[in-house]
Amino acid sequence: MIKNVTITGGTHGNELIGIYLVKKWQKNPSLVSRSNFKTQTYLLNKKAIKECRRYIDRDLNRCFNQKVLSGKGELYEENLAREIDDLLGKKGSQNPKSDFIVDLHTTTANMGLSIVVSNESDLTWRAISYLCQKEPRLKVYRWRGDEEDSFVDSIAPHGFAIEVGATPQGVLRSDLFFATEALIYHLLDFIELNNSDNSYILNDIEFYDHVMLVNYPKDENGDIEAIVHEDRQDRDFDQISTGDPLFRTFDGKVISYEGEKLYTLFINEAAYYEKGFAMTLAKKRIKKI
Amino acid sequence: MIKNVTITGGTHGNELIGIYLVKKWQKNPSLVSRSNFKTQTYLLNKKAIKECRRYIDRDLNRCFNQKVLSGKGELYEENLAREIDDLLGKKGSQNPKSDFIVDLHTTTANMGLSIVVSNESDLTWRAISYLCQKEPRLKVYRWRGDEEDSFVDSIAPHGFAIEVGATPQGVLRSDLFFATEALIYHLLDFIELNNSDNSYILNDIEFYDHVMLVNYPKDENGDIEAIVHEDRQDRDFDQISTGDPLFRTFDGKVISYEGEKLYTLFINEAAYYEKGFAMTLAKKRIKKI
Repeated sequence: MIKNVTITGGTHGNELIGIYLVKKWQKNPSLVSRSNFKTQTYLLNKKAIKECRRYIDRDLNRCFNQKVLSGKGELYEENLAREIDDLLGKKGSQNPKSDFIVDLHTTTANMGLSIVVSNESDLTWRAISYLCQKEPRLKVYRWRGDEEDSFVDSIAPHGFAIEVGATPQGVLRSDLFFATEALIYHLLDFIELNNSDNSYILNDIEFYDHVMLVNYPKDENGDIEAIVHEDRQDRDFDQISTGDPLFRTFDGKVISYEGEKLYTLFINEAAYYEKGFAMTLAKKRIKKI
Repeated sequence: MIKNVTITGGTHGNELIGIYLVKKWQKNPSLVSRSNFKTQTYLLNKKAIKECRRYIDRDLNRCFNQKVLSGKGELYEENLAREIDDLLGKKGSQNPKSDFIVDLHTTTANMGLSIVVSNESDLTWRAISYLCQKEPRLKVYRWRGDEEDSFVDSIAPHGFAIEVGATPQGVLRSDLFFATEALIYHLLDFIELNNSDNSYILNDIEFYDHVMLVNYPKDENGDIEAIVHEDRQDRDFDQISTGDPLFRTFDGKVISYEGEKLYTLFINEAAYYEKGFAMTLAKKRIKKI
């Protein structure tokens, strides 16, 4: 039985769709209220939202790990993560304040409507299966890039992030705004249904399982030497094979992909330049429901 | 006779294409050197570039007016504008250090390859005409939105800005990077040719002449109440007529355009949210060469 659902926006202060959706729901809470659980909505990084920046000192969505939550670090987002964990967690608690957290993001990559899942709970996967039934365009990416899951949704027993793109940071695209909103209503409908009856049919899920990050080629000063090849740009959830163009150097030379047949995701996401990677690679798999 | 051409990037610190092109040319100056004039390249707002932000205190590309240049204001970009004017101007001087400035920008709007011209010199227009011959996709927008031209290129007798998009801030798109580079080489070729022989044929230019800004609808707290309608999104340089959908409110209502038949430009540019406008409107005209 799910008692508390939390919808969060503004984890990254320049990803406007989640921010404006949360503002909308805070003005009209009936839109997200359902009969048999409580829904809360939060803007998480208000200081970053005000400055329309991803973060002030450190990426908040990499702070929800034991190191930070146990008290390490005094950066703005480290303190904020502990506050949020108190308010909406606590992470790992048997009696958390949120049973399910869905965290709203946008990406500059052409990820369409997608879910990033790092939580392995049955209910999380069943919710995703329901959403895939309702929204056939939805794609699912299981993230395995961190030693410990440090996303905000990891402080609840169930949850995931929604990522929509391509959209620039600091921009509200109408198509993606209303598509994200519709996904949330399907999710709330599912939780309401599931709370009262779990006999309905759900399908297995085709998902993209994280394999590795692809780093930018860099020179001896740490400057990138090449950018995503124009033929790879925007081809998120598309296959890449050995020999396919991957990067183009600033003087025009092609760097080809060498490796097994995989799928490219999060291609040319603005926020990943500082982390040094150009895209992620994933394998297509089936999750039995 | 043009003696000094200046190419500037990083006027806005999160518009990466100009920044990385200038870095490329600073490593390989021969790419931008021509036989009968001197080419200089500069990164203008290094502090903003380091932080990957448009600016620190104030939009640098609105600072090159008499008020700031005569000494008013101590904000970071106001001081920087005066330094740049000393180094590359001075604005209005009979003997400026740059005869021609081309300033490199990107936009989140779907502006393709475009020139923003606010300078009325014959040579500026002739250079644009040459570029339009060489690059048929190129579009030209004459900006008339400021009381006084405050762009960096206004400190030289000739010049314009190049705007390419759609691209998110903080992202290098390969297609737009190399298309921008090609435009610069055509421009330098033109100036070299023009310095030695101006008898070649140039065509009249079709251009989009600034008419007005379109503001976002706002509530009593100054928050935007509507976003660019999904049917208008990405339709830069396309016509709009009375009755066409213009905005969609957050609760889904359509706000239609009411006005004369014009063209929409700079639709949903991220940097214009804080300035409060959603797009610009322009009239198509012909510039006789």
